[in-house]
Amino acid sequence: MPEDALTPDVMSANCPSRLVLRQLTSRWGFLVLLALKDGTMRFAEIRRRIDGISERMLSETLGNLVAIGLIRRQDHNEVPPRVDYTLTPLGEEAARRLRHLADWIEHSLPDFAPGPAEA
Amino acid sequence: MPEDALTPDVMSANCPSRLVLRQLTSRWGFLVLLALKDGTMRFAEIRRRIDGISERMLSETLGNLVAIGLIRRQDHNEVPPRVDYTLTPLGEEAARRLRHLADWIEHSLPDFAPGPAEA
Repeated sequence: MPEDALTPDVMSANCPSRLVLRQLTSRWGFLVLLALKDGTMRFAEIRRRIDGISERMLSETLGNLVAIGLIRRQDHNEVPPRVDYTLTPLGEEAARRLRHLADWIEHSLPDFAPGPAEA
Repeated sequence: MPEDALTPDVMSANCPSRLVLRQLTSRWGFLVLLALKDGTMRFAEIRRRIDGISERMLSETLGNLVAIGLIRRQDHNEVPPRVDYTLTPLGEEAARRLRHLADWIEHSLPDFAPGPAEA
């Protein structure tokens, strides 16, 4: 059916929506978007907010989120270098939705079983 | 502050809420929860709905989601074996929220930039 072929579906391995889903809900992508909800930040500020993220993972994650249009990277061309990161309007909408999900998880935590030792 | 220590926070590496977040939004966990929204299913049925998932990954993912209380595994003790999987009430709530997020991504897909070639 032609209509199905045009309708994005995360259940399809090759649908671009699945790639977006993976970036949005990646281990660190999710938390970077939450962190930036509080406003424009420099690399070190984002890193301080996300307990456990390495420089390398933050750098890679920011690159991916900039590439799909959720974050804007601004280099102020100063010496010493000043570069900061801001959610785009689409990124703000995404972060708002992810924050709702995180709020629900934090709020419902007592309802979850202890689960496996490591993810 | 004692209150902070008691408040779940996904930004803290050791908070159990971060572990739950990782299971819920894992590459395959997210899609398994969406698949089971349609009702009780056997292993092969779930696998058919999720394009690209291997037997091994589905098995591991189901185990993790059972462990944190989102899915119930029922073995009917028949020969040949009949085992099926159902969302728990908590799993239904989680799946409903994940479906909203996926709907938004599918609907907003034209707004995203092409992004990196692979996640």
